Order: sequence, then C-alpha cells, then structure tokens
Amino acid sequence: MTEFGFIDNIKTLFDSLPTNDFEGIGDDCAILPIGGGESLLFTSDMLVENIHFSLETTSPFDLGVKSVAVNLSDVAAMGATPIATLLSLSLPKGVDEHWAEEFMRGYHSISERHSVPLVGGDTTASLGHITINVTAIGRTSDSHIKRRSAARKGDVIMVTGSLGDSAAALASFMAGKKSTPFSSRHLCPTPRIEEGRWLGEQRAVHAMMDISDGVASDIRHIMSQSGVGAEIALERIPTLHDARTALCGGEDYELLITVEGDLAEELITQFNDKFSITLTPIGEIIDGSSLCWLLHGEPQSVELMGFRHF
Amino acid sequence: MTEFGFIDNIKTLFDSLPTNDFEGIGDDCAILPIGGGESLLFTSDMLVENIHFSLETTSPFDLGVKSVAVNLSDVAAMGATPIATLLSLSLPKGVDEHWAEEFMRGYHSISERHSVPLVGGDTTASLGHITINVTAIGRTSDSHIKRRSAARKGDVIMVTGSLGDSAAALASFMAGKKSTPFSSRHLCPTPRIEEGRWLGEQRAVHAMMDISDGVASDIRHIMSQSGVGAEIALERIPTLHDARTALCGGEDYELLITVEGDLAEELITQFNDKFSITLTPIGEIIDGSSLCWLLHGEPQSVELMGFRHF
Repeated sequence: MTEFGFIDNIKTLFDSLPTNDFEGIGDDCAILPIGGGESLLFTSDMLVENIHFSLETTSPFDLGVKSVAVNLSDVAAMGATPIATLLSLSLPKGVDEHWAEEFMRGYHSISERHSVPLVGGDTTASLGHITINVTAIGRTSDSHIKRRSAARKGDVIMVTGSLGDSAAALASFMAGKKSTPFSSRHLCPTPRIEEGRWLGEQRAVHAMMDISDGVASDIRHIMSQSGVGAEIALERIPTLHDARTALCGGEDYELLITVEGDLAEELITQFNDKFSITLTPIGEIIDGSSLCWLLHGEPQSVELMGFRHF
Repeated sequence: MTEFGFIDNIKTLFDSLPTNDFEGIGDDCAILPIGGGESLLFTSDMLVENIHFSLETTSPFDLGVKSVAVNLSDVAAMGATPIATLLSLSLPKGVDEHWAEEFMRGYHSISERHSVPLVGGDTTASLGHITINVTAIGRTSDSHIKRRSAARKGDVIMVTGSLGDSAAALASFMAGKKSTPFSSRHLCPTPRIEEGRWLGEQRAVHAMMDISDGVASDIRHIMSQSGVGAEIALERIPTLHDARTALCGGEDYELLITVEGDLAEELITQFNDKFSITLTPIGEIIDGSSLCWLLHGEPQSVELMGFRHF
C-alpha cells in the first residue's frame, strides 16, 4: 500500500462525516473559512529519525529549522501567511538537554524570521528514535487561496528557484560525504513564504503547490485534481543536476504553479524583479490526462517517479 | 529535565515573538479569536509505542479511538466543541495493512460519534516503533472558554466521573493481566465532550481542565496559573481505588473544575440530572499557594505526584 493509496482509503472512510465547513484532504493544507472573507489553513508533517533525517548528518539546529520549514512551505504553497505552529516532540531518554536546546534554537530561529509563534504541542519520551510533528496554521483572504484543482488548459507551468539540490545533497550524504555544496538545501530548506504570498495575490496564478516529492510526482496531483494533462520541456528545467535528480528528487520545497497563458510573461518579469530567486516556465497544461516529457519539442519516453518515503 | 521544565524554557525562548492574536502555551489548548464573538482552539498530542501503549494489550481499533479521545478531551476541557482533527501516523514497515485499517476504523468510529471530520495529516514509514500525532481543532463562543487561570478563592473544586480506573487497568496490564474490569477506561477513554460544552456554558464554572496526569498533579496547574492554593478532602474523591491510584494515576480524562461557591450546589444538581456521570465536590480554592490534603478535616502529610511520561 502506498501513502497515496492509504490516503485514498481514508478519504473514502471519512466521506460520510460532516465537513464542519472544512475543505479537507487533497491539497497542501485543509481550509476553514472563518467569515469576513478570510480563511485559516492547516497542515501537519511528521519527521522520523532514520527515515527523514540522520543524526550523523543533521545538526539539531538545522533539524529544528527544517521541521518548521517543511510545514511553512505547505502554507505558502496555498498563498497564505503562516501565523502559528504546534510542535510535538518525542525524544529517547539518551538525547541530552543540549540537543533539545539546540533543536529549539533552530525552531525559534525560523519562527522568528517569519514571525510565527509556537502556540502549543506536546513533549514525550521514546524508547527508540526521535519523532517530530509540526502542525502549521496559516491565514489568508479567501480570494488568494491557490488550490491544486485550479489548473486550466493553456496554463503555463512554472517553478520557483532551482530543482534537485536537496536530492543531490542527500545522495552525497548517503555516499558517505559529510558536507556538499548543496548541504543546506537539504538540511534546512528555505520555504518560499514571501513568494507564495505574492503568487497568492496574483489572479494570473491558477494552481499552486509545493514541490516536496519532485515535479514528476507532484505535477500529477495538479493533473488529477484539475482533470488535465501536462507537457513538460526537459531542457527548461532549472537545475544544476541530471533530469532524474531534478524531477524525481524530494524536498526541494520550491513552488509549482500554473499561470494563465496570456499573463505568463508579465508575471515572470514581475516575479524576477521582486525576488532573488527566479520563476521559470517549464511546460503547459493540456487536455486529457497524460504527462508528456518533451526534449526540444520531441516526445521522450521516460518513466519518472517522484520520491516516496512510505 | 522534566516535561514542565522543558516547556517553561520554550515559553521563555518564544516570548519575544508576536502572538498573532493567539493565546498560546499554558492551557489545554491554544486559543485564536476569529471575530464575531467566536474562537478556535488547537491542541496536539503524541502517542508513542511502548511509552503510551503496547501492541500486546492495545488493539489497533482501541488505539485509533484513544488517539482521538485524548485530543477531544483537551478541547472539551476548555468548554469548546471539537470540529476537526489532523492525523500524522508513522508506521514500521512490518505493520500490516489490516492493522492500519483497524486503527483507522477506530479513529473513524469516535470521529463519527462526535461529528469530527479528519481534514489532513501525514503518513510516513518508521524503522522502529509506531508514533501517532493528532491535532484537534475546537470552536466556541469567546464567553464559554474556561481557562486554568480563572480559579478564585472560595471556589468549590469538582471532578466528573470517577478517578483511578485507567491507572488501575494499566497496573493490571503491567502485572501481566490481559484484561481487567477497567480495561476500556485505559484503552479507549471517553472524552467528556457534552459535559465540557455544557460546563463551558455555565457562568458558575470558573476554571476547567482535563485530568490527564492525575488530580494531584493537574490541580497544581490551576493553582499556579490562578495564583491560588487548594484544599482537597481525600474522603470525597470519587474512586473505587486507593488514594494514590485515584489521585496520581494518569489518563482518566475526566474534567477538573472550580465553581463559584454560592452556585456549587445548584450546578451539581443540574449536572447530575443531565448526565449519566456524576459531578463531585472534592475541595476548595484557598488563598496562598499550598496544596493541602485533608482527611475528615484533618491535614494529612502526604507527598502525591502525578503521572509523568517524560
């Protein structure tokens, strides 16, 4: 059973329950309209030792940063501003106070940078490994929320920043290297908070999500939720790595968007003027349900799957 | 470092951050006023295999129920109605589909009973044990929220239901018994949702919290947050067990409240008419900061500490 199969089963099981006004499972965050034209957004991510991180390559400070970053990224990916987090932390008895303090210093550092208070949570022991769960809460105007389901035929597909750095760093770590040029992209990724909020404000942007499993996997969520197909031009992928690393590597935490065709060029100009990272067109939303990889316009027969933890 | 010491450190570290309108760490839930006289409440609890449960004595169905119950209890303990949960679940590769399905059936069962949809979360692998984190969201009128900080001198201290059943069951399990008369009180506790909501509506109720670590420990949170002392009459504790089990045993998930002295009798009559469990006066809020145990009016010199996982 894959993670996605399990989540589909859960969705079916809970279909009969009232929604209590929530728009639930299926996007980066759950959405609750609270009146006055505003909504709150909710997301939870769990990081497990030796699945998502290793104490050998990750400092407690960086891990504290990353635990918050991956959740803020989900909030940003819907066009919202993060307003709070809750932290649950399970620590083996062998973990010393210094580790816990450094973890919290990292957690505090990114929370302070984005003005996001820690408002609750839980701390507990563990007989085995470290587990971290963060729930992030976001807030935005209803009209700024960007869903996976909003892509339309003719939209230009774009990504922020560059792809594959995190996966390249992970590959180096797994090959025994302690440090690589891209270490920080993997160890303490930068969530695209300002970029996500700004893109949320742009009517030209239709669908948005963050890239956590690789474009090859994540674009399929937009396709299935929007009922569309996609063409992606391999030569346009902004990356310093090979196509597989760029498209299938997890944990880039860049943003994947689809933009009204006529307005694409202007949006790119504005974005690139405003931010220090680039916005790059990589393909187009098409009719149907297929994902087509092109190289200089020629269809490529490649089988690319995103990264799966589960 | 105890859990409470760690949480105090975290509170200090995060003191300089903006609150974004949240009332954060220090109560059963964080509170966010959303306008129109209403607030949302947030709480997170993590359950770790071999710390909070053992697969030998806990069925996946019961564990699914309990994971939700302990969080709904925190929402009820502030006088609010639970409106949604998010679930993060980390499962070792050896856990089979049947286990996961039964867990979700239990999770669904209590969610359906209280009309609480599952709106998001995360599923991931683990190389070791099972970890479960649930975040619950509640909603209520601002005027119905009951805080730990609202106890006043002269308040009558009361508890719902009876105490110590869960701890007695746990003791039996740890002594090797597979089943006890109180198994279900430990394995799948009943959160006092209706009772909490009703108590939230009563102006006579000042402070409220749920009893998760035992009255001996939990009353101290009300004392320190309210700046008061307390006297508790040992002979009044509603229990079928000895005083230590009743007062120091964890996981009762009953409600601990303080009630305006003049209105105490009427509140008890109304509560006991309305609900199938009883509301029992066990003591009084006094000046100062001491916790005094009395037996038929005579001070007792006992050292009672609540249950600590951490």
